[in-house]
Amino acid sequence: MQYIEKWDVFEVAIPGKKDGNPFMDYNIRGTFQKEDKVITVDGFYDGDGIYKVRFMPSEEGRYIYRIEGSFAESVTEGEFLVRNADSYHNHGCVRVFNETQLAYEDGTPYISIGTTCYAWVHQSMELQEQTLETLRSSVFNKIRFCIFPKFYDFNKREPITYPYMRGNGEGIDENLVKKDEKDRIIYPGMEPPAIDFNFNYYWFNPEHFRRFDMRIRQLRDMGIEADIILMHPYDRWGLNMMNRECCDAYIRYVMARFSAYRNVWWSLANEYDIIVTKTIGDWERYAQIICEKDPYHHMRSIHNCLKFYDYSKTWITHCSMQRIDYYRHVEYTDEYIKQYKKPVVWDEIGYEGNIHVGWGNLPAQELIRRFWEAFLRGGCAGHGETYLDKNDILWWSHGGILKGESSERLKFLKKIWQEVPGNYLKVGKGIFDEVVGVVESANDGSNYSNYEIHYFGIGQPAFRMLYFSEGEEYEVDVIDTWNMTITCMGRCKGTVKIELPQRQYMAIRLKRIKLV
Amino acid sequence: MQYIEKWDVFEVAIPGKKDGNPFMDYNIRGTFQKEDKVITVDGFYDGDGIYKVRFMPSEEGRYIYRIEGSFAESVTEGEFLVRNADSYHNHGCVRVFNETQLAYEDGTPYISIGTTCYAWVHQSMELQEQTLETLRSSVFNKIRFCIFPKFYDFNKREPITYPYMRGNGEGIDENLVKKDEKDRIIYPGMEPPAIDFNFNYYWFNPEHFRRFDMRIRQLRDMGIEADIILMHPYDRWGLNMMNRECCDAYIRYVMARFSAYRNVWWSLANEYDIIVTKTIGDWERYAQIICEKDPYHHMRSIHNCLKFYDYSKTWITHCSMQRIDYYRHVEYTDEYIKQYKKPVVWDEIGYEGNIHVGWGNLPAQELIRRFWEAFLRGGCAGHGETYLDKNDILWWSHGGILKGESSERLKFLKKIWQEVPGNYLKVGKGIFDEVVGVVESANDGSNYSNYEIHYFGIGQPAFRMLYFSEGEEYEVDVIDTWNMTITCMGRCKGTVKIELPQRQYMAIRLKRIKLV
Repeated sequence: MQYIEKWDVFEVAIPGKKDGNPFMDYNIRGTFQKEDKVITVDGFYDGDGIYKVRFMPSEEGRYIYRIEGSFAESVTEGEFLVRNADSYHNHGCVRVFNETQLAYEDGTPYISIGTTCYAWVHQSMELQEQTLETLRSSVFNKIRFCIFPKFYDFNKREPITYPYMRGNGEGIDENLVKKDEKDRIIYPGMEPPAIDFNFNYYWFNPEHFRRFDMRIRQLRDMGIEADIILMHPYDRWGLNMMNRECCDAYIRYVMARFSAYRNVWWSLANEYDIIVTKTIGDWERYAQIICEKDPYHHMRSIHNCLKFYDYSKTWITHCSMQRIDYYRHVEYTDEYIKQYKKPVVWDEIGYEGNIHVGWGNLPAQELIRRFWEAFLRGGCAGHGETYLDKNDILWWSHGGILKGESSERLKFLKKIWQEVPGNYLKVGKGIFDEVVGVVESANDGSNYSNYEIHYFGIGQPAFRMLYFSEGEEYEVDVIDTWNMTITCMGRCKGTVKIELPQRQYMAIRLKRIKLV
Repeated sequence: MQYIEKWDVFEVAIPGKKDGNPFMDYNIRGTFQKEDKVITVDGFYDGDGIYKVRFMPSEEGRYIYRIEGSFAESVTEGEFLVRNADSYHNHGCVRVFNETQLAYEDGTPYISIGTTCYAWVHQSMELQEQTLETLRSSVFNKIRFCIFPKFYDFNKREPITYPYMRGNGEGIDENLVKKDEKDRIIYPGMEPPAIDFNFNYYWFNPEHFRRFDMRIRQLRDMGIEADIILMHPYDRWGLNMMNRECCDAYIRYVMARFSAYRNVWWSLANEYDIIVTKTIGDWERYAQIICEKDPYHHMRSIHNCLKFYDYSKTWITHCSMQRIDYYRHVEYTDEYIKQYKKPVVWDEIGYEGNIHVGWGNLPAQELIRRFWEAFLRGGCAGHGETYLDKNDILWWSHGGILKGESSERLKFLKKIWQEVPGNYLKVGKGIFDEVVGVVESANDGSNYSNYEIHYFGIGQPAFRMLYFSEGEEYEVDVIDTWNMTITCMGRCKGTVKIELPQRQYMAIRLKRIKLV
């Protein structure tokens, strides 16, 4: 009998009907049962006459299944065994934990250090491989990217495949693309695509989606969450002008195809509010389809440009935020957590780089500062790089290699974060304008009954006074978040003056020693 | 006949009654007349049996005057001539101009670059002289300081004089001061002063106020506005526990004594909202006394700590603001200008320095950035330095010398500001997240019909695209606000790519050439 690990994908592939439009004309579904627990999932057509059903088991033991639908005359049945999840990176799905935190399904803390390469899966295979190599040695454990290709500044090349075919499954005429000279984004009802691609939005391109399968699996096996963006505004192919039937079919296709990967998150949109062809009603309908068709209830959110979506909607698991003010944003993390009672994930806080726009020319120091602000206030943040490149390969969209100074500092941040009892800080009160992240009572068997990180951000203090109460004893560390050093100041009590190097981005960590 | 310059002080000193408490028991007033214009001002007792009346004429020509009151049996009359204000720094009082701007009375633009040395006039005479020397070669044309001494961190030394005497004009017993060991600020109704100074709050110390006369005159002759703080919270001498009668008498004494200096501004309080002994009713009453007793209507405001005063009050000429948010403040300048329809003067936006508190450990770069933000949005800002010093001499409170890097950059800012047609920018719309200050139509006879400064702040763009309309031609300069360089890029039209050095704090200045 076939064995798989818990939270891996069990896939059944069956030949079926090929006449008409198999994507639309036939259905396939699978029913998976373990003891009295039954889960039904939709399958999908993968081209070449093959239909597939995928399933992610979340329990150990024996499952039986039954595949049926109009795609074939017969029913397929079978069984498989699920063993313990003992692969290094297999901890199940990321879930909301303690209302505002994140953790893997097996209880392992999920310390989210995200990055963004919107269109990396649309680049040449060589570049995609390089991106994977870079990710492999990086700290990132979440990456945001788009299923649809991207057209935007620095993103003028055509994707290597399109999500749709023409006519009854014909490919795109390359000459058509070469003829096109226009740099433009297609907005609603404005005009047809720059090129008459003549896409059939009822006919998916399996090659396109198979590559996403592969990349999602590779990310999964590296312990990286795939924060998949279903729709976005940067379109020249008419993808934002698809009718409602096609949009809904697309959402269902993605659910059937990718849900069984434990590492997927659903980001309904990037910058939903500038996709002017969609209404809130559309987003809510997509959300409803996702809630129905993803039986695993992966993380779900929707990302804004100028205006947050209403994160209080029950289908939204976490706030996937882009800053809506140029000057103050991550500094509100604790307030948003309080307001929405959900994890706050700052998926866009500007990128390290040097391009012409304010969101893409931050010094690494400032990006790192924003990560620390989010972390100390109980949230997490996402990275990106936008350094000019002679081949227009910018990490933020294309992947490739990292050129900046921030990603190394994020490794250091992760180390500090891992040392926090419970891996979660709440914002405390700083008496000298610093930001303070606090663990009020560490219950995790650590040696500390209280734990605080005081962060001075852009300030450059030369010293800091500490006032401990009678009977209290603390281990004190000075942390240089930029130069990535931790200097132990030993055990302290009473009133202590801590000398600091008069540099920016310093922190002091206070660990109150449990008295025996 | 005596001659004085317009906007200088005409002073009459007359011996008078010395029995009882001359500060309270007798009055003196002067009536000054030119043609049909009559102004009456209060005089004041200056000790040693001498009463004084001061008057600032604002017109050229012959004035007659009459001094009278209960201080003497007889009336004194006389006349004097007022000639043109031809001293280098004599432009009259600073006034509100065009609703939200500042200018001197003679129409000269007032480009406000302020600084703060709260307690400089309470330091040793040598240190005060050094402060004046520093100011002489600095860019500052406004300084904030307190009449009452200051007790606070780094401010634990007693002042060289007190504003009040004991008993019937006796001085302070030096031994009393030496005995005191307590570091504490006197808050409301809490307790009496740390030392029983036994001040008679009805009996001013003329020596104290004479020194302020001298310093205000010296500042005036250097072209520096004296932003005089009447009350503040940092008290150990019971000055915030004076009764209403004494407070009102103090305000009247200050008006009679200092109003005739053209360079005074009235700051009713520093951090009014943490002087818990005062109510809004008290501040409003002081304001009323000031409006009545200052016939020249000097600039009037009140400075906050955590909560702005209601700047819409008609007696307030300008918003004297301290940031109420740690992260975003000067970036609201244009919004406050719009809200209050008054000039916005950021008197406290943090200081360059390295002390333990967030407001006092900014890098110079950040302080300069804040000045530029305020300037580009139509406001102005104030400087301060808080570098640790082995003798606890910090510019922000004690004066002395400047150690930082910001004051030189403020000279550069002033130069750029002076070059702006009309010396005033309104905020414009930046398309790439930059802040833009704009002169929409320069009417001052300059060669430019449109003038813009685009400032990139903490961003580090490597280039910037400019898109000019058909027929437009601009002179373009790249400004490095930190390194203080201006690089002329020549005349530009059409679409232009401007290379930038990928450094923070850069700006681009665009001057549209008038077509003849």
